[in-house]
Amino acid sequence: MTISVIGLGLIGGSMAIDLKRRGFASRVLGVEKDSVNAAAALQIGLVDEVVSLEEAVNQADITILAVPVGSAVKMLPKILDAFQAEGSRSKIVLDTCSTKSQIVRAVHYHPFRECYVATHPMAGTEYSGPWAAMPGLFDSRACIFANVEESSPKALKTVESLYECLNMRPIYMNADNHDVHAAYVSHISHVTSFALALTVLDKEKDEKHIFDLASGGFSSTVRLAKSSADMWVPILSQNRDNVLQVIDTYIEKMNQFRTAIAEYDEDKIRELITEANHIKKILR
Amino acid sequence: MTISVIGLGLIGGSMAIDLKRRGFASRVLGVEKDSVNAAAALQIGLVDEVVSLEEAVNQADITILAVPVGSAVKMLPKILDAFQAEGSRSKIVLDTCSTKSQIVRAVHYHPFRECYVATHPMAGTEYSGPWAAMPGLFDSRACIFANVEESSPKALKTVESLYECLNMRPIYMNADNHDVHAAYVSHISHVTSFALALTVLDKEKDEKHIFDLASGGFSSTVRLAKSSADMWVPILSQNRDNVLQVIDTYIEKMNQFRTAIAEYDEDKIRELITEANHIKKILR
Repeated sequence: MTISVIGLGLIGGSMAIDLKRRGFASRVLGVEKDSVNAAAALQIGLVDEVVSLEEAVNQADITILAVPVGSAVKMLPKILDAFQAEGSRSKIVLDTCSTKSQIVRAVHYHPFRECYVATHPMAGTEYSGPWAAMPGLFDSRACIFANVEESSPKALKTVESLYECLNMRPIYMNADNHDVHAAYVSHISHVTSFALALTVLDKEKDEKHIFDLASGGFSSTVRLAKSSADMWVPILSQNRDNVLQVIDTYIEKMNQFRTAIAEYDEDKIRELITEANHIKKILR
Repeated sequence: MTISVIGLGLIGGSMAIDLKRRGFASRVLGVEKDSVNAAAALQIGLVDEVVSLEEAVNQADITILAVPVGSAVKMLPKILDAFQAEGSRSKIVLDTCSTKSQIVRAVHYHPFRECYVATHPMAGTEYSGPWAAMPGLFDSRACIFANVEESSPKALKTVESLYECLNMRPIYMNADNHDVHAAYVSHISHVTSFALALTVLDKEKDEKHIFDLASGGFSSTVRLAKSSADMWVPILSQNRDNVLQVIDTYIEKMNQFRTAIAEYDEDKIRELITEANHIKKILR
């Protein structure tokens, strides 16, 4: 099977590696608009060849759209147009974006909608670009399949087998529900990390001290603040309503801490921390 | 050398392990008010014997005060009183607390102040109790020494060699500066993690979904929310003014994100994220 990967960054690159190594793909074509990244992807051996978008879609059995969601929303209809022009319903396109409502809405009425499978493999690191790609990134993580009733059973089955090859656990969900959940367990963590980084950078002009005193706890909390703007601007923008709701709840919780600390109300601080400790039951 | 460790939790227990294994201590006595923890510490072999506070202070060359800072502030003057009653200035007591201003102030005028060395080994995990203790916890981390001019050169030198045995890098700092820096690189991370946990727990009643969708990013950001109230209530309370200042800056940054997202101001979101990305230069 020939697979084309549009966007040779962390997600696209890591998929390319494992799909080829594990024999799901006999040939992997890549599309990458950044010429340095394209050269690097070839050099590292992420893909067999870097080609144009048209050629990639034309040659592939499955096209994987692994670009930031703002671009993906624009490219997906064009890819389905190309399938339609060719007149073949046997080709498949999937996306890997972190928000799902807007992208499924963008092609809801497309006559070749059934050739598209909306997915969100829940894996990643704070790094980006082809250099960040790694084997095994997806192993034993969850992959969301959104609005599967709009995909053809054959396309769905093929994409399920693709993610099975990546050792991912499938979870089926409505796109809107996905976006609410993602706001809580992924998007807000990024916003809080960005805000934490800004806070420390803003006040602590003497960088030496941050570096010296920063313990493991700080590093892990602020880790996501290294995440790229290219990826996160469209996510936060597209998932605006859900993200705003979570931010509001979050600021309310911060204010509860603020008030309790300001008033030396140790009983209230203890109550808040003890309640927060319940997260233990949920995280492994 | 005989070492007494008051408080056989993560910090005290981990110090006990390495100081004994690496030959700095020939004998380690422990004091632990929780009888279950005391029995566990003996069972695990963290200490040679569990004794009363009086006996521990009486027998030890160095007493390590590794209890939450609220208790430490009360116990430290009594330990110095015991040194004074004995009439010996050769004994040493050190504390390991995460806030330093209040504890150094509590004994500033004590006639045996010179026998005390104020330290903060910057290491830890989100776990607590004797079961959380581990060898190597402190290796290559930073240890703050606060207000060393108030300690006798001999006491300071001995405590420096103790932390050298734990492979820690010494950093010397005024207690008040320590507390400002700690608010930025440690205390705020805990408050933001607690608030994140509360936010998710509050809204996401269906715990199954959190568990399924939570990726590595969420886990690392919320990890510190497992930290114990016993440790963190007195820290946040004692470092009130600094922590409040950081919380205020932090909420301001969250509000900048909120406004930019609410107004679909992608340029502003990009600017904030790009600025936050500078944290890369500081973290390794």
